[in-house]
Amino acid sequence: MQDLMNQTRKLFAATHLAATLAGSPVFAAGEQVGESPWGPEDEIGTLNMMSDASRLEILQRIDAGRIYDLGVDLFVGMPDCCSAAFGDPTYQMMMLHAPARGDGSKELLSHSSEAISMNTHTGTHIDTLSHFGLHGKIWNNVSADEAQGARGWAKSGADKYPPIIARGVLIDVARAKGVDVLPASYTITVDDLKTALDAQGTSLQEGDVVLIRTGQMQHWPDRSKLALFSQSGLGLDAAKWLAEEQKAMVLGADNLGLESFPSTNPDNFAPVHSYLLAQKGVSFIELLWLEDLARDGVHEFAFITSPLKLRGATGSPIRPIAVPIRSSR
Amino acid sequence: MQDLMNQTRKLFAATHLAATLAGSPVFAAGEQVGESPWGPEDEIGTLNMMSDASRLEILQRIDAGRIYDLGVDLFVGMPDCCSAAFGDPTYQMMMLHAPARGDGSKELLSHSSEAISMNTHTGTHIDTLSHFGLHGKIWNNVSADEAQGARGWAKSGADKYPPIIARGVLIDVARAKGVDVLPASYTITVDDLKTALDAQGTSLQEGDVVLIRTGQMQHWPDRSKLALFSQSGLGLDAAKWLAEEQKAMVLGADNLGLESFPSTNPDNFAPVHSYLLAQKGVSFIELLWLEDLARDGVHEFAFITSPLKLRGATGSPIRPIAVPIRSSR
Amino acid sequence: MQDLMNQTRKLFAATHLAATLAGSPVFAAGEQVGESPWGPEDEIGTLNMMSDASRLEILQRIDAGRIYDLGVDLFVGMPDCCSAAFGDPTYQMMMLHAPARGDGSKELLSHSSEAISMNTHTGTHIDTLSHFGLHGKIWNNVSADEAQGARGWAKSGADKYPPIIARGVLIDVARAKGVDVLPASYTITVDDLKTALDAQGTSLQEGDVVLIRTGQMQHWPDRSKLALFSQSGLGLDAAKWLAEEQKAMVLGADNLGLESFPSTNPDNFAPVHSYLLAQKGVSFIELLWLEDLARDGVHEFAFITSPLKLRGATGSPIRPIAVPIRSSR
Amino acid sequence: MQDLMNQTRKLFAATHLAATLAGSPVFAAGEQVGESPWGPEDEIGTLNMMSDASRLEILQRIDAGRIYDLGVDLFVGMPDCCSAAFGDPTYQMMMLHAPARGDGSKELLSHSSEAISMNTHTGTHIDTLSHFGLHGKIWNNVSADEAQGARGWAKSGADKYPPIIARGVLIDVARAKGVDVLPASYTITVDDLKTALDAQGTSLQEGDVVLIRTGQMQHWPDRSKLALFSQSGLGLDAAKWLAEEQKAMVLGADNLGLESFPSTNPDNFAPVHSYLLAQKGVSFIELLWLEDLARDGVHEFAFITSPLKLRGATGSPIRPIAVPIRSSR
Repeated sequence: MQDLMNQTRKLFAATHLAATLAGSPVFAAGEQVGESPWGPEDEIGTLNMMSDASRLEILQRIDAGRIYDLGVDLFVGMPDCCSAAFGDPTYQMMMLHAPARGDGSKELLSHSSEAISMNTHTGTHIDTLSHFGLHGKIWNNVSADEAQGARGWAKSGADKYPPIIARGVLIDVARAKGVDVLPASYTITVDDLKTALDAQGTSLQEGDVVLIRTGQMQHWPDRSKLALFSQSGLGLDAAKWLAEEQKAMVLGADNLGLESFPSTNPDNFAPVHSYLLAQKGVSFIELLWLEDLARDGVHEFAFITSPLKLRGATGSPIRPIAVPIRSSR
Repeated sequence: MQDLMNQTRKLFAATHLAATLAGSPVFAAGEQVGESPWGPEDEIGTLNMMSDASRLEILQRIDAGRIYDLGVDLFVGMPDCCSAAFGDPTYQMMMLHAPARGDGSKELLSHSSEAISMNTHTGTHIDTLSHFGLHGKIWNNVSADEAQGARGWAKSGADKYPPIIARGVLIDVARAKGVDVLPASYTITVDDLKTALDAQGTSLQEGDVVLIRTGQMQHWPDRSKLALFSQSGLGLDAAKWLAEEQKAMVLGADNLGLESFPSTNPDNFAPVHSYLLAQKGVSFIELLWLEDLARDGVHEFAFITSPLKLRGATGSPIRPIAVPIRSSR
Repeated sequence: MQDLMNQTRKLFAATHLAATLAGSPVFAAGEQVGESPWGPEDEIGTLNMMSDASRLEILQRIDAGRIYDLGVDLFVGMPDCCSAAFGDPTYQMMMLHAPARGDGSKELLSHSSEAISMNTHTGTHIDTLSHFGLHGKIWNNVSADEAQGARGWAKSGADKYPPIIARGVLIDVARAKGVDVLPASYTITVDDLKTALDAQGTSLQEGDVVLIRTGQMQHWPDRSKLALFSQSGLGLDAAKWLAEEQKAMVLGADNLGLESFPSTNPDNFAPVHSYLLAQKGVSFIELLWLEDLARDGVHEFAFITSPLKLRGATGSPIRPIAVPIRSSR
Repeated sequence: MQDLMNQTRKLFAATHLAATLAGSPVFAAGEQVGESPWGPEDEIGTLNMMSDASRLEILQRIDAGRIYDLGVDLFVGMPDCCSAAFGDPTYQMMMLHAPARGDGSKELLSHSSEAISMNTHTGTHIDTLSHFGLHGKIWNNVSADEAQGARGWAKSGADKYPPIIARGVLIDVARAKGVDVLPASYTITVDDLKTALDAQGTSLQEGDVVLIRTGQMQHWPDRSKLALFSQSGLGLDAAKWLAEEQKAMVLGADNLGLESFPSTNPDNFAPVHSYLLAQKGVSFIELLWLEDLARDGVHEFAFITSPLKLRGATGSPIRPIAVPIRSSR
């Protein structure tokens, strides 16, 4: 871990971060970006599983007006994935206009506004399929040489993403394991997921938005306890089980980067990211607030969110909501 | 108009923009910020009209999975309210990480991400109650001296805003008047609203999200035709009728700044803004994409959006959706 | 001109600006990036002409403590080369800390600071050799594929630039032509330069910093009169004469982009830029304030400036000074 | 120290940073902002000591063309005063234009540029008199209520600062004390300065730019060893001796914040800052690179720098140079 952190620290003093983050060429031959079953023009992968019928089905099961807010506040000084890890900019908000000081009685109209600047992967956010690729290509064989300009990708940007309305399922791994928070760097396994689902009495369905709870948001917003490179999260096998066997549409977790870090693969510092985004076309959501759902034992819900259509962006801040539904059982 | 533009141009060369934007002290004595009927701690005004029951009522009327996307793309070079008018920063997106150039075969993992910077009043967005005040105070008697720091307001920021789920109503004024786009600077009257509602066969209810269509998004995204200071929009009387008689919860329009500009009140360049936000506690949404609803003649719908919880911000970019409902008639 | 502006407007709505700014492949075969006479490691081109001896020679000729300030103010709303032309971000300054409002007597320490954000080509600034290249390469055969990462170039960045101390010469073309300001898009010729030098009684020497006055700063800071694509400036022949026959070390001008615009070469919108930077290794300075030198008829001086060492940047804001010297005649 | 760091960490999660940074009201009655001896319009304090004569005197003593570069590189990931201490934004540089990827032969012109964003107190920089005040006022009785708008101060901004040309003196405290680097938080005393000057054989003169060497740049750019709140630096008594008895014009040091931290005054976390800037009108420079001067034993020199004229800013990045001079003894 210390080695990784030292290496990371050196990395962001370097001009060519991207180059040095890449692994060695010994990666298994089979690991190439995926070709979309939805055709050569597809840019959103498994989000194609949604339809008017699937949306209507879940919306009509809503049986309460109680809303669970799954998004976090964005504020100066907030924990983030990438400022400490990669030297990326922190979230900032600065005023543009403010009521002038002095004798207020002279001023009728008091105008305030502000600008924000942020990594798109800040706060609760969705990762789009352009966020990670393999060998210079992203999902559906789109190469950086052809589709990446100075300001972003022409393909699979957040602007291509539809609003998401689907059944959401919470898998409360922390609770199933009887802990408040999973241990640092703990890697969630297929068995962990199955055990938690059994304990909850929940079963997954094709097209679900599957949200994994590690309990780490108990530490929110303590920066000293929420660091990307020591977080617990999804393991590669568990991700494969969710994507391939359970046919989840979207994944999510209550941590900074979905998967557990550090990676045990010396050639790939984020193997779950590249597997889901580049090989399987599965988008996912990070830094979700799942504490209220967990407290109330709400494991099934209508999941609703609308990514901002940031043209060419590899991610978008979102504030998803969960609404309780009638059980399908 | 030319005078206004010249004046504006001078304004943003000045250090103390806010001060000079303020009007003279001759404003009518009655125009003070409002005190909230929801108590001294209230920061969200009419959004208090929502309840579990109100949300459930509208969600249960959903009868289609077809979704109307009411948000616009955000992109470098997009039209905005305030860069030309006030010298505010434009929307920008810049890359943080990108697959390195050169021999791609050496690089397993292709990592891309980017930062955005923007005025919070960019793209489709909601204005919070702190955006405009009167005499140095905002809604509910909160003064800048007490509640505005170097980075924003402690009160009525976007972080205090709940997700919004309510009945939405489109009032298609452009269609009712038989034009594609209302004339430049046209001021919508109470009669215009009544006539359009009649023509549509729609009636308003307490707690509605009322969206006004001027047709200006027919010009999207042509910057030369979408300028704040020449836009058509809501007049003050029409705003009063909606807020006080119809008891709308939230307003919205398909233009850069809700109301018509320029203002005819020399003391207040945005009288509808200050009336709604500071006096009545009514939040509103700007730069809505209403073209699809208008095309399909959908005038009643479930309106769903989640402002980002930008701490202390006077606005938040959003991407609302509309979902068709069974008629209440 | 109108066509160019329209084209430009369309350009910055596109994701791949850089690609579309490029010309057609019919450019003359001879126009390739230059190889440095100072060796394969050279990144600064003609700045290698400076030596301890050359600096001492000019410093010892200083004969007055009077200073000419050749830099402009940077402020919100200032004219710039590239926000209108390319959709680039404008200069912004926003507060980070400010004395709190309210009862000032409670606050001993009043701390203020701010952040700036800007295109590095804003205000008075130097263009480094990485700013323009040909066919994907910059000066000294450095290719983007090898040396350009997600955050900038590894070669010829402003961090490699030495402080500049050399003889400066003002060529007051506007005065020689008897006008306050050269006409829009006027292209300065070799004859214009010779005539002005004769009129002034000045002769050029190898290693000079040669500053060309068009008079356009008479309009400073009127944005409506200072637009990149209609500016007067250096022509390609004049640039060649200065670089090749007069062996100038650095060039400069009192306009937004050194050369006259629009270019008459359909394949290259900035042929003087690519000639000087990519083919000849000559850096240059834009948006210089030459009015005081011109007013006082000071045509020879010690020129002193220190580019900020912005790692990998293609430009740096500077504030050069000129100090009167004893004539060399 | 730990307490201070904890307190600091809490601080930047708060909305009203400025308010909480302020001390208690028990500060001695005498500590008020100073009134300028150069009159009620003065905004630059002791920089008024410069004159054409003073500049010429020092420039004419230059006897070598060898230049000492006193500025540091600015780069993503660089150490800074204030991102860790206050949650301020880090230095960032991001590309605006870059040669398009793909078939390079199709692209004649290769255009690159970038934007930077930074706290103005980043890298080698000068602090202006508006940076710290007392009781809501800055130097010369200018109050925030009257002169501070939403975007900065109308008084004492960097735009008011002249280029600085004066005798510079290096006081190498680290060398005089026989250490590479002064211990963490070491406070430099008057005796330390006198001893070092004696050891060097240097004497101070009215109007000098006095640069203090602690040796901390031996750690450059190791972020883990260059933290504001544990740095060695000038003590208040030493600052008073330099300002009042030696009549220094400008001070400087090779650390992030001039003075030693943490402050021993519970009411003022930066007492040397407020003393020099607010009470005495003495500007100073931080993060100077003094290693080359120290290595060569150059203790007297012509000091030359030009602050960028950032309108209303409390600081400006600079890259000063030192040029050897004939001794005055």
